[in-house]
Amino acid sequence: MNLIQKYKIPTPKEKRIKINETLGFDIFPCVLKIDLPIHKSEVGGVITNILNNDELNKAKDIILDNLKKHNIEVNENTNFLIQEEVKGIELIIGGKFNEIFEEVLIFGKGGILVEIEKDITYIDTNANEEEIIKAIKKTKISKIFPEFRGKKYNLKAVIDVIKNLQLMFNNEEITEFDINPLIVNEKGAYAVDIRIKEGKKNKKIFYPKTHSIFQNENIAIFGATDKKEKVGYAIAKNSLNSSANIYFVNPHLNTLFNKKVHHSIDELPHIDTSVIAIPTQFVLETVEKMAKKGCKNFVIISAGFKEAGNIEGEKKLKELALKYELNIVGPNCLGIYNGDKNLNLTFAKSSVFKGDIGIISQSGAVLTAIMDKAAAYKIGFSHIISMGNMADFNFANAINELNNQKSCKTISIYAEGIQYGKEFLKAIRNSKKEIFVFKAGKSEAAKKAAFSHTGNLAGNFEMFKILSENAGAIFKDSVESLIFSPKFSAKEIIIVTNAGGPGTILTDLVSQKAKIKKLDSKTFEKLNKVLPPTWSHNNPIDIIGDATSKRYKDTLEIVKDLADLIFIIITPQFMTDALSVVKILDSDKYIPILLGNESFTEAIEYLQKENKLFFTSLEEAVKIL
Amino acid sequence: MNLIQKYKIPTPKEKRIKINETLGFDIFPCVLKIDLPIHKSEVGGVITNILNNDELNKAKDIILDNLKKHNIEVNENTNFLIQEEVKGIELIIGGKFNEIFEEVLIFGKGGILVEIEKDITYIDTNANEEEIIKAIKKTKISKIFPEFRGKKYNLKAVIDVIKNLQLMFNNEEITEFDINPLIVNEKGAYAVDIRIKEGKKNKKIFYPKTHSIFQNENIAIFGATDKKEKVGYAIAKNSLNSSANIYFVNPHLNTLFNKKVHHSIDELPHIDTSVIAIPTQFVLETVEKMAKKGCKNFVIISAGFKEAGNIEGEKKLKELALKYELNIVGPNCLGIYNGDKNLNLTFAKSSVFKGDIGIISQSGAVLTAIMDKAAAYKIGFSHIISMGNMADFNFANAINELNNQKSCKTISIYAEGIQYGKEFLKAIRNSKKEIFVFKAGKSEAAKKAAFSHTGNLAGNFEMFKILSENAGAIFKDSVESLIFSPKFSAKEIIIVTNAGGPGTILTDLVSQKAKIKKLDSKTFEKLNKVLPPTWSHNNPIDIIGDATSKRYKDTLEIVKDLADLIFIIITPQFMTDALSVVKILDSDKYIPILLGNESFTEAIEYLQKENKLFFTSLEEAVKIL
Repeated sequence: MNLIQKYKIPTPKEKRIKINETLGFDIFPCVLKIDLPIHKSEVGGVITNILNNDELNKAKDIILDNLKKHNIEVNENTNFLIQEEVKGIELIIGGKFNEIFEEVLIFGKGGILVEIEKDITYIDTNANEEEIIKAIKKTKISKIFPEFRGKKYNLKAVIDVIKNLQLMFNNEEITEFDINPLIVNEKGAYAVDIRIKEGKKNKKIFYPKTHSIFQNENIAIFGATDKKEKVGYAIAKNSLNSSANIYFVNPHLNTLFNKKVHHSIDELPHIDTSVIAIPTQFVLETVEKMAKKGCKNFVIISAGFKEAGNIEGEKKLKELALKYELNIVGPNCLGIYNGDKNLNLTFAKSSVFKGDIGIISQSGAVLTAIMDKAAAYKIGFSHIISMGNMADFNFANAINELNNQKSCKTISIYAEGIQYGKEFLKAIRNSKKEIFVFKAGKSEAAKKAAFSHTGNLAGNFEMFKILSENAGAIFKDSVESLIFSPKFSAKEIIIVTNAGGPGTILTDLVSQKAKIKKLDSKTFEKLNKVLPPTWSHNNPIDIIGDATSKRYKDTLEIVKDLADLIFIIITPQFMTDALSVVKILDSDKYIPILLGNESFTEAIEYLQKENKLFFTSLEEAVKIL
Repeated sequence: MNLIQKYKIPTPKEKRIKINETLGFDIFPCVLKIDLPIHKSEVGGVITNILNNDELNKAKDIILDNLKKHNIEVNENTNFLIQEEVKGIELIIGGKFNEIFEEVLIFGKGGILVEIEKDITYIDTNANEEEIIKAIKKTKISKIFPEFRGKKYNLKAVIDVIKNLQLMFNNEEITEFDINPLIVNEKGAYAVDIRIKEGKKNKKIFYPKTHSIFQNENIAIFGATDKKEKVGYAIAKNSLNSSANIYFVNPHLNTLFNKKVHHSIDELPHIDTSVIAIPTQFVLETVEKMAKKGCKNFVIISAGFKEAGNIEGEKKLKELALKYELNIVGPNCLGIYNGDKNLNLTFAKSSVFKGDIGIISQSGAVLTAIMDKAAAYKIGFSHIISMGNMADFNFANAINELNNQKSCKTISIYAEGIQYGKEFLKAIRNSKKEIFVFKAGKSEAAKKAAFSHTGNLAGNFEMFKILSENAGAIFKDSVESLIFSPKFSAKEIIIVTNAGGPGTILTDLVSQKAKIKKLDSKTFEKLNKVLPPTWSHNNPIDIIGDATSKRYKDTLEIVKDLADLIFIIITPQFMTDALSVVKILDSDKYIPILLGNESFTEAIEYLQKENKLFFTSLEEAVKIL
């Protein structure tokens, strides 16, 4: 137990004595245990609450008897362990090295029921005190802090143990350990049972990037073509409106979109960014030639690498990136977008508006769907990075990159299976911008799907979520939230409705993500003047089934400054004129929800024509929170 | 503790001795406790693991010392309690009388951390053994059964205790009790600490119905009118296609829809069902007059009762129902629909198709939205009951009623706050038809909203959910599921997609509700023949971004009989011709999900025109499960 002393993990006072000797100890109550690597309590190998040396020796006889009954052999070298009896609440702190996040601690409720109760959380070994406390608070057992049933449990002592174990796990050749229980009481926290497994850790080496993927003055597009069914056509077309210099490259073509097409690399001037949309077999040599020519940024659209079993090709891409200090995005990706230069190097069909959301996506199709939705509601992006297979450029690189871009105000991430977890967490921790994350691969079936799709392990979803959240990321439960949440980020909500039931359902849905604003008596008085006496006198403000657009308008006038966002529920009741209602909604703060298919055709057409955000389902509507 | 003996609750052997006497006991190890109504363990009032009488008397001195330190007074009549020490896992069984479900048991993990761990479940006192086991299995601690760490814990003993406590709680004047801990081990289950609070229970009297609300031969519609803005107009109009005899009643009108309008009750023949859509002040007298004339069924559309503060009027309705043995649905409701007679007595605007779903809704607006959606997808109903304020006719009546209707195959319920919880559970328990439930009012804010909307307590959501599920109901998390789930009820799902990311996300969503079908090697071989080598080799079947409609068709041919339902994800990739894809979907089993707004206009128009179910969001799509 040298490590335990080296890293100052407090343990109860203890003493080992050979089984044939007379036992003696000086702290009572104490515990007597047989010192064998077995489940001691299950074979009667532990006796607690021993009050004096007389009892201690009686307890010894009882244990030896119990062991005999269970056919457990002892010999003259076997020890008894006498321990100070520490009373308090049983916690567990474990550590396990894993492929994605490397050294990770597990903290939670200890005792024999650990595997049943699963009241645990995860702590990165690089987490600072603030993160450690955030993590601890995710467990139910943390409610004993600072006080439970009149006892003040020593949280500081627990945190100190965690900090020391972080150091131990990071510095030593340990692959796994367990302290169960770690008993916490008013005085301190004591490791009562400790198991450490030594071994070599296979740590990954992470190379930080030396320059920006968004240095895009001179762009070469390899595979630019006039064949409309090819992605090289779409990229070339999308690139046209940029302020950067664009060079098309294709040996079989002379002009494209009235621009010269270059036939070989030799013809090109200095290029900082190459987009590669050519047959797989030519990708590696093109990258190397361009790298030798001084090009640093590569966006590889071409597929046919890891996702198609071509592991070797993918490895070579990584080697090129290291050798020439390149940024290689992809392969097998949708491309990148740089709003500062109005530069769209993706093959997505939807229009892209300039804005302040930076987005990083591990799936091209998910990204396409997000871009499509954003275009429909004119939500803009500062930067887009489609990660593809992540042969080189990975999530940590991408987050750091977007942090350096002024025009990017918030970062949204769609992730499936990641690599370099520790660097990912560092990037989140160091981010000066809010980071929104959606992660697929929660269920076992989805983990398998993610693996067959990206070739990366999706890992333990809960571990990913808890570690990322503690480091500072904000988790979202739908992909759409990645573009809506940065735009709205509403904390207090008002609901105005012409029907009680849907108002109640929406209240449930909102309460999971934001606060239902409490209305004060002054607001009540004002509303009493414009609403029928049967109005709900509560938020949701039920303005009753016969509400006209005027009643909606009067209500909104009174409450509009009281909340960040106001949901307007419209149900098809007898007096409802939905078109008039949606026409009075003159603020982005107002989000109409129209609950009815047949009855609202006109109102929906109007909203679509005006590019206004609206919903036809309560569950969809709360995705903007 | 007479009740404990009367209801055969096993307890450890125990003995009480006055504090001034010498202690003696004959079972060891034993526990010594001071017999005072205090948190004993917090003041050092309990000593465990006592091995002989010598120790027992030493322990007594220690406890008396501890009590002195905590200023707890004892006198010569104070007792010590000596108990056999029972070792095992600590459970809790409590009971609390509540307004909605009356006598309800709480079962879960016991010990001092109960309020922190909250690993508990609820059991109705009328639940049979099967339900009790279902309830127990909802707790984490139930994983100790049948065996944990080599010990077989005695589940039967626990169930016996629960059954006896059900009897005790139902039969005795007890408002609350707690057994914590109930210790379970290999031998049995022992109530170690028991607290019982006696008191009077305010039980509600439930009157079962003597005849059916759907006996609808001769219908009178009071308030039928030619004024289009009134609900009486809509009901009259909706009623026209029925095979029942319809009589309109309105003193100010002679004909309506080419039918005679009656001016008074005296003119009417025998009526079995009266629909009341007249001003509030005339409702009571109309009901009583019609009741005297022999009419048994009333559907009161008129508002202005409890929801508007008119408690007295509502009470009188209930009294009339009891006096004349009536069925009174409402007041303040949307009406009823009886598919057997093609009889639509609601004022909903949407068309109603005849089908086999029976629906019961506590919110008119939610019902309207459901009916609108059902109409859009031609999903039909056998019966519809809008519950309104439930002055008389309540959920239990409605469930029993639908159980008696042959044409009703499944029952869907939208509930907010209920009354007669015990009868509600009985009705579910006795139902021969599957019951789907959506309940609003989970969050505190929504509970308040539900109360201000329906005037009924929403109660504890978890209690409602667990009790209803144990009794046999199937809980749904969206209102739309109430019409989709009875139609699909798919257990095994296949996903066909042209993109990996959305396939992974959908897999997560599906996994919460159904099973992702595992494909066998024969299917793999067949798929290998029609798909490119890079297909996912997994379900979700990722048929790769360049999939044509032919590739979708070939895939579906192979897998169509392997699952109850097949989601077809279409993302806007470069080769995607969504219109051709949706055109080949020739089975109701295929549910297309089109992820893209701008790109899929034609395909969406086609699906809408064909009245085919489709979705544009993954989260919406899983509502059908």
